[in-house]
Amino acid sequence: MARGALMIRSPKGGNAMKSRISRRRFVQSVAASVVPVALVPGKPGIAKALASLGGGAQAASGNAAWKDAGVVDVSRSPFAKLKPVPVRAVEIKEGFWSKRRVTNVDSSIPSMRDELVNHGRMDNFLRLEGKSTAPQKGPVYSDSDIYKWAEAVGFVLQSGDQPDLRAKTESIIREVVAAQEASGYLNTYYQDDRKGLRMQYDVQTTGHELYCLGHLLQGAIAIYRANGDRTLLDAGIRFVDGYLLPNFGPGANQKGIVAGHPEIEMALIELYRTTGERKYVDLAGYILQGDSRIPLRQQQIVYMYCGIPFTSRTKLEGHAVRAMYACCGATDYYLETGDKAYWKTLNMLWDDLNQHQLYVTGGVGARETGEAFGDPYELPNARAYGESCAAIGMMMWNWRMLAATGDAKFTDVIERALYNGINSGMSLDGRTYCYRNPLAFDPQGDSSDRHAPDGKIRNPWYDTTCCPPNLERTFASLPGYFYSTSDEGVYVHLYDNSVMNTRLKDGAVKIQQTTNYPWEGAVKIAVSPTAAQEFALHVRIPGWSAKNTVKVNGEVVSDVRPGTYLQIKRRWSAGDTVELSFDMTTRLLKANPAVNEDRGRVAFQRGPVVFCMEGLDQADKHAGDLVGYTAKLDGESKARYEPDLLGGVVVLEHPGAIAGGLTDAGLYYTANSGEKLTESPATLQLIPYYAWSNRASSSMQVWIPYRYS
Amino acid sequence: MARGALMIRSPKGGNAMKSRISRRRFVQSVAASVVPVALVPGKPGIAKALASLGGGAQAASGNAAWKDAGVVDVSRSPFAKLKPVPVRAVEIKEGFWSKRRVTNVDSSIPSMRDELVNHGRMDNFLRLEGKSTAPQKGPVYSDSDIYKWAEAVGFVLQSGDQPDLRAKTESIIREVVAAQEASGYLNTYYQDDRKGLRMQYDVQTTGHELYCLGHLLQGAIAIYRANGDRTLLDAGIRFVDGYLLPNFGPGANQKGIVAGHPEIEMALIELYRTTGERKYVDLAGYILQGDSRIPLRQQQIVYMYCGIPFTSRTKLEGHAVRAMYACCGATDYYLETGDKAYWKTLNMLWDDLNQHQLYVTGGVGARETGEAFGDPYELPNARAYGESCAAIGMMMWNWRMLAATGDAKFTDVIERALYNGINSGMSLDGRTYCYRNPLAFDPQGDSSDRHAPDGKIRNPWYDTTCCPPNLERTFASLPGYFYSTSDEGVYVHLYDNSVMNTRLKDGAVKIQQTTNYPWEGAVKIAVSPTAAQEFALHVRIPGWSAKNTVKVNGEVVSDVRPGTYLQIKRRWSAGDTVELSFDMTTRLLKANPAVNEDRGRVAFQRGPVVFCMEGLDQADKHAGDLVGYTAKLDGESKARYEPDLLGGVVVLEHPGAIAGGLTDAGLYYTANSGEKLTESPATLQLIPYYAWSNRASSSMQVWIPYRYS
Repeated sequence: MARGALMIRSPKGGNAMKSRISRRRFVQSVAASVVPVALVPGKPGIAKALASLGGGAQAASGNAAWKDAGVVDVSRSPFAKLKPVPVRAVEIKEGFWSKRRVTNVDSSIPSMRDELVNHGRMDNFLRLEGKSTAPQKGPVYSDSDIYKWAEAVGFVLQSGDQPDLRAKTESIIREVVAAQEASGYLNTYYQDDRKGLRMQYDVQTTGHELYCLGHLLQGAIAIYRANGDRTLLDAGIRFVDGYLLPNFGPGANQKGIVAGHPEIEMALIELYRTTGERKYVDLAGYILQGDSRIPLRQQQIVYMYCGIPFTSRTKLEGHAVRAMYACCGATDYYLETGDKAYWKTLNMLWDDLNQHQLYVTGGVGARETGEAFGDPYELPNARAYGESCAAIGMMMWNWRMLAATGDAKFTDVIERALYNGINSGMSLDGRTYCYRNPLAFDPQGDSSDRHAPDGKIRNPWYDTTCCPPNLERTFASLPGYFYSTSDEGVYVHLYDNSVMNTRLKDGAVKIQQTTNYPWEGAVKIAVSPTAAQEFALHVRIPGWSAKNTVKVNGEVVSDVRPGTYLQIKRRWSAGDTVELSFDMTTRLLKANPAVNEDRGRVAFQRGPVVFCMEGLDQADKHAGDLVGYTAKLDGESKARYEPDLLGGVVVLEHPGAIAGGLTDAGLYYTANSGEKLTESPATLQLIPYYAWSNRASSSMQVWIPYRYS
Repeated sequence: MARGALMIRSPKGGNAMKSRISRRRFVQSVAASVVPVALVPGKPGIAKALASLGGGAQAASGNAAWKDAGVVDVSRSPFAKLKPVPVRAVEIKEGFWSKRRVTNVDSSIPSMRDELVNHGRMDNFLRLEGKSTAPQKGPVYSDSDIYKWAEAVGFVLQSGDQPDLRAKTESIIREVVAAQEASGYLNTYYQDDRKGLRMQYDVQTTGHELYCLGHLLQGAIAIYRANGDRTLLDAGIRFVDGYLLPNFGPGANQKGIVAGHPEIEMALIELYRTTGERKYVDLAGYILQGDSRIPLRQQQIVYMYCGIPFTSRTKLEGHAVRAMYACCGATDYYLETGDKAYWKTLNMLWDDLNQHQLYVTGGVGARETGEAFGDPYELPNARAYGESCAAIGMMMWNWRMLAATGDAKFTDVIERALYNGINSGMSLDGRTYCYRNPLAFDPQGDSSDRHAPDGKIRNPWYDTTCCPPNLERTFASLPGYFYSTSDEGVYVHLYDNSVMNTRLKDGAVKIQQTTNYPWEGAVKIAVSPTAAQEFALHVRIPGWSAKNTVKVNGEVVSDVRPGTYLQIKRRWSAGDTVELSFDMTTRLLKANPAVNEDRGRVAFQRGPVVFCMEGLDQADKHAGDLVGYTAKLDGESKARYEPDLLGGVVVLEHPGAIAGGLTDAGLYYTANSGEKLTESPATLQLIPYYAWSNRASSSMQVWIPYRYS
């Protein structure tokens, strides 16, 4: 497709139509398509509704362009190999993720709204409208939490209407928009008495104004893509067009601009994808380039991960969420421009991530100080920061890299984070959240951890409450991550019971998965084109799966390689099936010897799920910090499904030992003169890492010392 | 001895005389004894002078009480089992420590004076006298660095006059005293324009006024004990008597007092030991008790390690130097009062130190954040803080615990710190210093380490320059740590070529050591009483020495137990010898499994010396971070003395291996499916830890991963 032209796919339900239109006409057509959506009357039991949310009927009946947009709408991005499948086109059926997603809608999102309101985050808006006398509440970035929560609702509504949730959100949006200044500016912290500080250079670096705007735009776009409601979107556009673009940029009569906390970059590019206005890509590119008029210290450049040309970066460093969001924005910029310098940098940074910085759980950001990336291989366990937002940002970045390439190495990372370091961030009841996601924990440990007050790692509220709505928007958007399409056909990225409806160039296709993944390795995929057609089905063979079997209509396919998409190109007809069988052998993972804290230890992974030991599961009810347990390196793990434990999980048993007399042993003893700890046999009990800390307070460890037999 | 009475031992050279005198008479007698000391004319070659500093002649010729005081003068402390031997009574001959001590006097102390002057630390005083227009320089505690430096000089002069150094110090003291206010107050940061802040409660917690006063007193006492010069001592007494005592304390007309940074406690008690004024012990006790009128947050109580009753502490935590200095003051308080609650607490804290907090190098204080103790067993290597001052404070505390008990477990800790984590703090040329003493280092590592700018761990100057003069005073005072006496006889704590002259109840005794310790395990001790007399010689059997031989006049002594003082009670005559032979087998130490970073690793210790690998010594000149080396757990180390390396050291060779293809290995690999790193044999080269980073910049590690054969 030629640069500068935009391709609009027709809405579902008719013949595929491609039309080449000018940018101006595109915008007009988008605006024209905003029509009130008929609301589904009444409110069915939400849990029931969710179990069959999204998918078929509604997606097929729409006729507005906003309905076709994916989570990241690269459907017209010239350098995207993969095209998104909208959230509404995928229905996640009862299985591993359905419980989490029902809880998210039934419990997490409503209770987080109450938390936000109760902590005065809406009063910040109401005060500006004369409707509240409460003082300003929360840190400078508090508006963003409202927007991220609204974005979660937007994704929920993309799977099907939730009248009560929608009404509450519309009410919040009304109040948000009412607080907007005539100039377009909207940030409750820098209106009223702090107006003079607005966008000062030293406020740009710390004040999160553009960060909040970015989340406003992302929230607005998710809601617009749910039901065409432009209220918040128009407010965001007014901010950008009315205030930001005229005053900030490279012009002599403009002031310098720096993201401070990257986020605006990807939001502006998504705004371009929504409106077709290229100026938003240009501004994002300008911000990614850095503005030399703003004086920055080296420490700020490292910490903020912005302010200098993105393409001059050579490693991940500084604040992990900032770095990950910057990489998202830079990948979005590459997807729209094809700038090779960006692509080179992004791949260098990804190698750094994958070789040096990624926890086995998919968490990133090792250091509490600065919530930052550490040195290469600096991956402490108990002191791991692993902020939920950073893992989510990393998944968002990998999703964009996957869109650019179709390379399964990115999906492997997405799956690792999603099942483990992200999934751990929300309690099973959906009411409490992790800010940090450590890989070892001792409830009697360091009480100075401000993100685990009183030794509690899961809390319903943080004054910096970035992570909870971030988790909510991620789970709400999950259907959008399961599949993609390309010029060649369909990609299957993630496995769970689900139905996806899409259109390929020769007609509609339905893909249906049946599986007990991630507990079992068998996945059956029914491929049902409306009429027989030739296309390629790309099924992901996970990198962790050493031995795999793939059958098409019962016939074994050869050359199945882990860590790739297996392309099955043929003429598909209704009734065709693909059967996948992955290797569910429990793997004992060692870390590169450069990872100090993992030396002499193994982590357990089965399928995509990483396991951990909790003290309370061990036979001797070991109350302490799990010190002294060792796992036999050549022992064989037994896996069994426990339907009534932690919402239904596979647990592992592994042979090992427990040392005695530890406190008597002192700090140091002579290894080469026969001094040994006394040990007795023990069977180690492991549960999925994501489910830790959902029962009584207990110690936990992912990396377990090993022993030879 | 009855409480409240003071025992003065007569000066050397006559019959032993004990006199029971009132406190008032004691003070008068001290004052009367201050007479000008005849200066040694001219300046001999300092190095030559140092090689035979201290000892015999001068000590025997004096007649002033100040000459008999030890480093910590517990000679009259009712709860001290051991009595000190003054610095001047011990001559350290050519051997392990003589080089360090010559460098200290020839190079470190003079160059540190220049650094202090060049960085405006004296201008701070001169400005108050109208002699300088330079602005205030350095942090709030900068005066203390002058005093600690003066204390180092005081200890040097206790070993023999150094006219040039003494003259420079007297000049500094004149300027210091000239800046003192008529009120007695003396702190350059809070005179002049900051006078209004002085001793405000929130300044007491952070302003280091009492910390600076404590160092003033310690410096003053060391100089007074060198040559009877009371100039600085009288200034300190004026501060305490004129300003502090009238205004601060429990009285209704007094204000509250908190140490902020403990130091004043031990200084006040040493002032009592110098003057006999019990009120100083009382004030120290009041400060150790905490003053509830000063509001403190829990975080401050933890960090400052003061402000609540010392006896309510149950563990080491917070700022490591503060905690160690608090323990020094509390032990001093116990030594004078016998308060059992203090003794209980001190032993509980010592167990915490020894079981959970002590690096194998004798360093303490694991965390950079707050320069603080971490959780139990939190002993990271590369990120170890291990501030030089904290190791010194810990040694000072153990010296006091040893004085109270005569228990060799305290000496084992002193020796571990002295030879390793303290000795590492000063470069071999005496010109640069470590602030941090990490147990692993990568010069390409974290550039944000403010105490290792540009990856340099040794620097000539720090804006917070507490450690350099602390190291200097420690090495200058070293002769005072070698021996003690008790009612029963003599204790030998440390081993090196040395001569000690003391008087026991039945007459003078000379003890002479001949040894190549710590490189060889043989020590010959010649015991030479002027006339034959019965007493007990207590020779320390190091805890690290598993197999020992002790011979008295060639006859083997039985029941020699590591980690104790072997008591040899007999009638000693001139010509008697004791021959010690310690076990110099290289020990591969493992850490308690609770120490995460040491899991799967061993440290090498031979005698009291802990070893490390530096990258530049390895056969393949491994430039990186030493990752991939493993040591054979059952391999045999070879030790050889290298006279021309690093001032003469034993180096170790140990069989092991080096892994290849590390960067290809990725972060994680499957351990239970045959995936292995490729390895090839390598002979590991180790040098003493204290000597690391004295050649080209290189990586370093103390804890080395081990492998089975």
